[in-house]
Amino acid sequence: MKLKIEDARTLAVEALMGIGIDEKGARVTADHLVDAAKRGMTFGGLPRILAISERLNEYGDRRRPIATVHETPVSALIDGGDNVGYIVAAHTTQLAIEKARQSGIAIVGANNTYYTGLFAYYVEMATKAGFVSFCIGNGNAMVAPEGAAEARLGTNPIAFGFPSQGDPVIWDIGTAAIMQGELMLHMRVGEEIPEGLALDKQGLPTRDPVAALAGAIKTWGGHRGSGLSVVVQMLGALCGGPVISPGICEMAFLIVVIDPKVLMPGGEYPARVTELADAIRSARPLEGAPPVRMPFDGSARIRRESEQNGSVEIPDVVHASLLKLAGQRKSM
Amino acid sequence: MKLKIEDARTLAVEALMGIGIDEKGARVTADHLVDAAKRGMTFGGLPRILAISERLNEYGDRRRPIATVHETPVSALIDGGDNVGYIVAAHTTQLAIEKARQSGIAIVGANNTYYTGLFAYYVEMATKAGFVSFCIGNGNAMVAPEGAAEARLGTNPIAFGFPSQGDPVIWDIGTAAIMQGELMLHMRVGEEIPEGLALDKQGLPTRDPVAALAGAIKTWGGHRGSGLSVVVQMLGALCGGPVISPGICEMAFLIVVIDPKVLMPGGEYPARVTELADAIRSARPLEGAPPVRMPFDGSARIRRESEQNGSVEIPDVVHASLLKLAGQRKSM
Repeated sequence: MKLKIEDARTLAVEALMGIGIDEKGARVTADHLVDAAKRGMTFGGLPRILAISERLNEYGDRRRPIATVHETPVSALIDGGDNVGYIVAAHTTQLAIEKARQSGIAIVGANNTYYTGLFAYYVEMATKAGFVSFCIGNGNAMVAPEGAAEARLGTNPIAFGFPSQGDPVIWDIGTAAIMQGELMLHMRVGEEIPEGLALDKQGLPTRDPVAALAGAIKTWGGHRGSGLSVVVQMLGALCGGPVISPGICEMAFLIVVIDPKVLMPGGEYPARVTELADAIRSARPLEGAPPVRMPFDGSARIRRESEQNGSVEIPDVVHASLLKLAGQRKSM
Repeated sequence: MKLKIEDARTLAVEALMGIGIDEKGARVTADHLVDAAKRGMTFGGLPRILAISERLNEYGDRRRPIATVHETPVSALIDGGDNVGYIVAAHTTQLAIEKARQSGIAIVGANNTYYTGLFAYYVEMATKAGFVSFCIGNGNAMVAPEGAAEARLGTNPIAFGFPSQGDPVIWDIGTAAIMQGELMLHMRVGEEIPEGLALDKQGLPTRDPVAALAGAIKTWGGHRGSGLSVVVQMLGALCGGPVISPGICEMAFLIVVIDPKVLMPGGEYPARVTELADAIRSARPLEGAPPVRMPFDGSARIRRESEQNGSVEIPDVVHASLLKLAGQRKSM
């Protein structure tokens, strides 16, 4: 069904408060989820509230307030206190932006968190402040390094963001060959996954999503992609938690934020990003192919369309479940 | 032929001085090239001196001293003065390490350079100092973004390095589907390149290296890999030169160096890198496959073997050419 954007936001806030998230955290999380919905993300929008709810039920409520463990003018290490990653990573990013504003560059890492969402969201927080950034998240072992028959790596997302004079340039990928959410969807609808993306428990190639969930996902991009996943996991190890998370907990998020004025004090960098982006877009397309796009062009376009329509798409069944969660709050 | 390591170093220094590089620059460059030779690199070792010589002949000697254009406690922008990248990038990296030692994190970029070699070398300079780092280089347009029929991107290398208790973990890749050096080699020996790596001038797939050199190389890794190449080029644009280099000149090199103690003040990070690396290496290999390796394990092993043997391999024809260049100096 279609929901007005503001109604989707209200529903998300109320459902999140219904599962025990405080109002401030619920608003931060809802902003992320509604942004994902506006960008047309199938898995990244309001359905994630159901995943957060399941996780809270599974692990129990072990939350402590977010705390700063160690701090310098250019850095901070944050204890996420087992709060959901949407809240912890937004806090971490905001702190990194403030430090970069003061010092020119900053690195802030967090541990003790889970479910951090779409990393484009965080680097876009930085591009809105005029800053270049990159962020990574590690996670529990679900992905086999190249040449391995069993998992050692998380799905290990990484994103870079660059401020321009128009839409930012944002590259936001997972380093796994297939997202866990897609595996789950294939399982639910009883469909095979494409070849070459996963291994079963014995380490043999499989197209069965159930066998893949019991085995391991492969990394994207062969040796080079496997190496990038290792890079993400190594950066996550800077955040002080276990080097491989034991479950949907104790995951890390790390962001580096750079004020481009530390290298280009005249403030000309956003114009240069636009110049380079336009030069790339102007490349002659392959025969029969659409115009060349920059990373995030598609997302920015879909988001603009959603804003013009004033609505986002939510699966009916998810809508009903969220109403129930929101009702829990009202009945408390 | 085999050359003793110290003889290879002396020959490299003399050949570089023979083409007009000063002694300090020649020693810095020779150290990089001999390291590449010890790591068994076919293209990255002493043969590069011939490429530098050709480039100097083609463009003429336009060198000015390396200069700092802008500087803060956490950053510097360097004018490479059209000096070869081996020298400029080593200078840039050294400065970033010194700034990271003072400030905890630093970003230093350089422009007006060319031929920067193997990026593992620079991040290993940082791992030897106990620091995490990543560096990138952009270049002239040889690579087509995903969906494009013509080039807009450089071959755009990127490397990350992590200090451990033993060999560092270093991920060092080019974002092009095939290295230019490999294309040239295929051309010289009259062999086709593998399918899917390059386009001809019309934007059609080609396996002919001559047609590929006149056309464009594809990026590695489809959409995700093309996006990473865009990321590298955007980071290069922070260095103040043209956003796309006009030729084998005005290329950029950028490095970010992080003291892990800004997040983990107890100095425990190298032990954590070792712990994670060993956990990954311990993954059960695919049936019939060798043990799982970390990025750089192979390089570190080959380098150790070269050091035990005390020699490196140099093609006879390259050796003869280098002797001639070294002789130019003696006859001056």
